Amino acid sequence: MTSSPNPTAAIIVIGDEILSGRTKDKNIGWLAEQLGAQGIQLCEARVIADKKQVIIDTVQTLSKAYDLVFTSGGIGPTHDDITTDAVAAAFGVPVIRHPEAERRLILHYANTDLEFNAARQKMADIPDNAALIDNPLSAAPGYIIGNVHVLPGVPTILQAMFEGLKPRLPGGIVMTRITVQCSTGEGNIATILSDVEASHDGVSVGSYPWMKPGNFGTAVVVSGLDAEITTAAAKAVEAGVRAFGAAANIVNADGTLQD
Amino acid sequence: MTSSPNPTAAIIVIGDEILSGRTKDKNIGWLAEQLGAQGIQLCEARVIADKKQVIIDTVQTLSKAYDLVFTSGGIGPTHDDITTDAVAAAFGVPVIRHPEAERRLILHYANTDLEFNAARQKMADIPDNAALIDNPLSAAPGYIIGNVHVLPGVPTILQAMFEGLKPRLPGGIVMTRITVQCSTGEGNIATILSDVEASHDGVSVGSYPWMKPGNFGTAVVVSGLDAEITTAAAKAVEAGVRAFGAAANIVNADGTLQD
Repeated sequence: MTSSPNPTAAIIVIGDEILSGRTKDKNIGWLAEQLGAQGIQLCEARVIADKKQVIIDTVQTLSKAYDLVFTSGGIGPTHDDITTDAVAAAFGVPVIRHPEAERRLILHYANTDLEFNAARQKMADIPDNAALIDNPLSAAPGYIIGNVHVLPGVPTILQAMFEGLKPRLPGGIVMTRITVQCSTGEGNIATILSDVEASHDGVSVGSYPWMKPGNFGTAVVVSGLDAEITTAAAKAVEAGVRAFGAAANIVNADGTLQD
Repeated sequence: MTSSPNPTAAIIVIGDEILSGRTKDKNIGWLAEQLGAQGIQLCEARVIADKKQVIIDTVQTLSKAYDLVFTSGGIGPTHDDITTDAVAAAFGVPVIRHPEAERRLILHYANTDLEFNAARQKMADIPDNAALIDNPLSAAPGYIIGNVHVLPGVPTILQAMFEGLKPRLPGGIVMTRITVQCSTGEGNIATILSDVEASHDGVSVGSYPWMKPGNFGTAVVVSGLDAEITTAAAKAVEAGVRAFGAAANIVNADGTLQD
């Protein structure tokens, strides 16, 4: 997608409940942060319906386009959980009853008063030749097939599973990202920002206006893979905005002034 | 996409800041609710990067696939706001300085101590033959070109602009959506749910497990365009789960019991 040396990624959220507005997605934002911290470049995220052909098409398209794909949702015990069937079809492999997944689920349900019935056994059905992703909370595993990482939709479970998955993901150069808080509207400093971006190789400069009662300004986010050039660009923004006559300060992630 | 008589829609969120995890998207969930309340079927949402060719390709693909497309983000005064150029290119039209948009912006900035400089004038540049969408908060309009509705990324402004846009959108049959709260795991009632779905034409039955300290259960969401069949299906879920031996109650949207 770019000339960046970092692995690229896409997220697929599978869920009618997100598209209906009933449930608000929390996985895209959380995974975006995690991938960024790992030096993986998230290029795209899609929310799609619980429809088999839609899932197949989306998985095929995005697994070809990017180095890594993460899906969330639709791997539970009920009839509307069709992700596994669709992902297997996308890779042209059958779904098998996975002995290790089954063993973990039997163990898990033996410790509850819940029956390990046919519906729950379905959670041991995994595409052939997929590698399991551990689920420390509710046993039912996710899995990796090709470059696709299949995770559940419930945020707490997805997050716990992703922690275990991290060491298996390729690393990249973590993007340096510096915020310059400016006490002026973005329209006043647009030329400064585009000039800084043009004169600093590989640096991108984003601007995000904000408004609070009695106060407004612009958060300028300077980012790039080269820490030195990115820092120089952030300082150039700071100097340029001050020369224009507004306050400008490089701040920490929590918004406090840097030393 | 389906045999539903309702208009279909897609959302495109344009924003590197969402993909980096710096900003959490709030527009997909909000628009999803609004479209549902209007009887418009949201089929897909995509978050994409601030890259011109990516925006062009995505706008072209989704405007062909669905009746309505809504974009958010990238129509401000700075160099990273490239949505308008890309949308115009997607429709093969030039960008023009729109006289009415310019008039509104001049009026708006005359009431501030901000200069209506070249960067801010850029917000009056609109694809040729697009219709303006009023912006009651900060004047800079959105616009409609073909079936694509271009809105800003800032949630408060997007929301205020969408309110004014509503009467111009086609209506559809509002989906009837009934929640049955069940005091048991979804794995116990999977067969009941798939049977109810199979025996009620046009009804879909989703199940969403939840867990609180000391308590767990499943929210079963029964939805369909025919209110009568959907209500019958929800009652069948309630009866089926009770026959299984668990509590089940049709609840209001806020989770309280229905009369």
